[in-house]
Amino acid sequence: MKPKIPVPETLTDQLRRGALMATECPSRDVLKHVTSRWGMLSLIVLLDGTHRFSELRRKIGGVSEKMLAQSLQALEGDGFILRKSLPVVPPHVEYSLTPLGVEVAVQVRQLGDWIELNLSRVLQAHVQRAA
Amino acid sequence: MKPKIPVPETLTDQLRRGALMATECPSRDVLKHVTSRWGMLSLIVLLDGTHRFSELRRKIGGVSEKMLAQSLQALEGDGFILRKSLPVVPPHVEYSLTPLGVEVAVQVRQLGDWIELNLSRVLQAHVQRAA
Repeated sequence: MKPKIPVPETLTDQLRRGALMATECPSRDVLKHVTSRWGMLSLIVLLDGTHRFSELRRKIGGVSEKMLAQSLQALEGDGFILRKSLPVVPPHVEYSLTPLGVEVAVQVRQLGDWIELNLSRVLQAHVQRAA
Repeated sequence: MKPKIPVPETLTDQLRRGALMATECPSRDVLKHVTSRWGMLSLIVLLDGTHRFSELRRKIGGVSEKMLAQSLQALEGDGFILRKSLPVVPPHVEYSLTPLGVEVAVQVRQLGDWIELNLSRVLQAHVQRAA
């Protein structure tokens, strides 16, 4: 019998865990959905609660109907967003975050907040480089 | 004279601060550079220290020379990355994070870590949807 030595991470753990630096890792697809412009902004808006499609579109400046639908569908596929279609006339579709979606959206919002709050420092860097 | 009332945010502050939901805000460009696949992965790798171009390319699986160069250039323009060209033969170019770059890279790494650590939960969502 082998002696028990502490192993910080088993092979299974390593396989279950994503590896963003590896070309074929499916974590790259998740990264793509979560960090696409419209995906990111949708996650941030949905942290404020359930929204209808038209509400999301109004809040996210410049997004087309097609691009928003695609982004939401990808995030729904990853289990981040719940799409609820109510059987009414005219059709009423609601989007909300799943618990998993709330977790990732909090991360995304932190990055978004940093960019919003530090924009002037970045623009200053542009000015300095142009000088 | 007007009575002094506490104003949480002045108009100047609002203008200096980015607005990601607004179509024309330059924060959208910063978001694009920082969340592009190769931009994100470059920032994460550079948190470990200075790297040569070839080292970066080796660590980031699947990136082409052209795409890596473009991503690094965009991040350099935003003041996140410092490019140092040493006057030696053969040419030796080093990349490192600026203090501003370290700040944004920490945010990016947190999001990347979340995705890597929670990949199995996302893949589980895929399985459940397919069932």
